[in-house]
Amino acid sequence: MKKGTIKVSVLYPYGEGKTFDMGYYCNTHVAMVSGLLGEAIIGATIEKGIAGGAPNSQPTYVAMGNLYFNSMDAFQNSFGPNADKILGDIPNYTNIEPIIQISEVMV
Amino acid sequence: MKKGTIKVSVLYPYGEGKTFDMGYYCNTHVAMVSGLLGEAIIGATIEKGIAGGAPNSQPTYVAMGNLYFNSMDAFQNSFGPNADKILGDIPNYTNIEPIIQISEVMV
Repeated sequence: MKKGTIKVSVLYPYGEGKTFDMGYYCNTHVAMVSGLLGEAIIGATIEKGIAGGAPNSQPTYVAMGNLYFNSMDAFQNSFGPNADKILGDIPNYTNIEPIIQISEVMV
Repeated sequence: MKKGTIKVSVLYPYGEGKTFDMGYYCNTHVAMVSGLLGEAIIGATIEKGIAGGAPNSQPTYVAMGNLYFNSMDAFQNSFGPNADKILGDIPNYTNIEPIIQISEVMV
């Protein structure tokens, strides 16, 4: 992604008793978000956490979803009107409360 | 990145009194890491945190660096012998203790 691109990361922290349905997330949830936000999304990635930095440690996040937009306006104008629908789907795949991180691509 | 690629994320948490020299990180640190790890690295990205999910909130991370490898072996075999040099450079650009997250690319 080129410098200045806006990256919106949705980070799902690991925890005891927490569940995350990666199949639903990759196939159903992301398809719904892509359909709702349309061309405002210029890229999307999903990662599954497998470990932390220390040997045999748990990952900080069991899953990370990242959406890329050309600008903050493009993100806010597309996400805002669809926020209720998107956030309402979260209980269908996890009982984790995600952390949102908004970043600017440097490299 | 294709499914199964290993993503090593280095996450620098925001905090009071914490500093981060993005210029040194993007230009000097990453060049050093790329030089040391060589062809084991198949991709690298850097993001600057600009906000959290709530209005006017601080980002969880002021910076995120991501390195991509074909396998865990490729990461461990290239990083291990250079860990001291790479970790020793951290105080040159920040007083933050980073979090390491190892993930597998799903999408």
